[in-house]
Amino acid sequence: MQLLKDRIRKDGKIRSGNVLKVDSFLNHQMDIELFGEIGKEFKRRFAEQEITKILTIEASGIGIACIAAQYFKVPVVFAKKNQTKNIAGDVYTGKVESFTHGRIYDIIVAKEFLKSEDRILIIDDFLANGAALLGLAKLVKDAGATLVGAGIVIEKGFQEGGTLIRESGVRLESLAIIESMSEDNGIVFRD
Amino acid sequence: MQLLKDRIRKDGKIRSGNVLKVDSFLNHQMDIELFGEIGKEFKRRFAEQEITKILTIEASGIGIACIAAQYFKVPVVFAKKNQTKNIAGDVYTGKVESFTHGRIYDIIVAKEFLKSEDRILIIDDFLANGAALLGLAKLVKDAGATLVGAGIVIEKGFQEGGTLIRESGVRLESLAIIESMSEDNGIVFRD
Repeated sequence: MQLLKDRIRKDGKIRSGNVLKVDSFLNHQMDIELFGEIGKEFKRRFAEQEITKILTIEASGIGIACIAAQYFKVPVVFAKKNQTKNIAGDVYTGKVESFTHGRIYDIIVAKEFLKSEDRILIIDDFLANGAALLGLAKLVKDAGATLVGAGIVIEKGFQEGGTLIRESGVRLESLAIIESMSEDNGIVFRD
Repeated sequence: MQLLKDRIRKDGKIRSGNVLKVDSFLNHQMDIELFGEIGKEFKRRFAEQEITKILTIEASGIGIACIAAQYFKVPVVFAKKNQTKNIAGDVYTGKVESFTHGRIYDIIVAKEFLKSEDRILIIDDFLANGAALLGLAKLVKDAGATLVGAGIVIEKGFQEGGTLIRESGVRLESLAIIESMSEDNGIVFRD
């Protein structure tokens, strides 16, 4: 998606430890007009698919998922993150290790919002080591629902997440895949 | 807002400790079509105001803020919650005591995303004791920006938040104000 790549080049900031800061338009301040174009692009890529629900994870996936959901005309469910050990109620849970923060947390979705007849599209802002996406895919599987695919805004192609997801058979659509990045040479996109 | 009140009556669940569960359409599963109507109603109520940015707080405020922002044609900034003690970088911070969880956390916004020339509309899903909203208002004040007002989806009118905010001089627009609720008598709305 050229508009997105141009924006990443213009406003993305490369930090040590393979961190790409895009918090001026994606995950702290959010450019809603850009989100609209991202939502339309996800719809274009999954146009022929029947989708009943979009699943995302708090916090930074929620805005993109909600804007995209307008084009799919479906509700959004967001998985909650929890560091507590005791999870009450009828919920699906999984464990996710955060790349950015280096800690393990639980992700939780109430069972009543993921049904076996659901056809789920997962949407998230970033794909790096794939932990969050694999955790969400596990919740979908636990519910007996169908995972139609995953739409990611920015994939770090030099980390293993994309390969893991594609090899697991999940259809993955990333709108910008970063092949490499460095403060000296800037950002190189795949393709 | 009648559509919203009808939906709360239909799908809201009253739980002990003055908890109103609306997670089937507002803050776990999200009805994006309803969010569109909520966004339009916020725009109608603040139509005559110049607004440059919407400020909300993770996680459940983000979806509503993003959908509403489409009608205001402005970006959204969400304050991050943090339980860590060390906050790095150029950020505005405040402390908020959660009504639901009974713990204190920091809220954080990067200084570059709140400027003195900004005219801010705060949007959030719930107003109860007002802690989150007062915390967000403090960030706006710290930035020297103008707080145009606050748009809330559901206000618990029997808790002190609404009174505190209105007495502080902030224009507060709550789309549904609950006067009282009980498992026996159901929900009574103000007006």
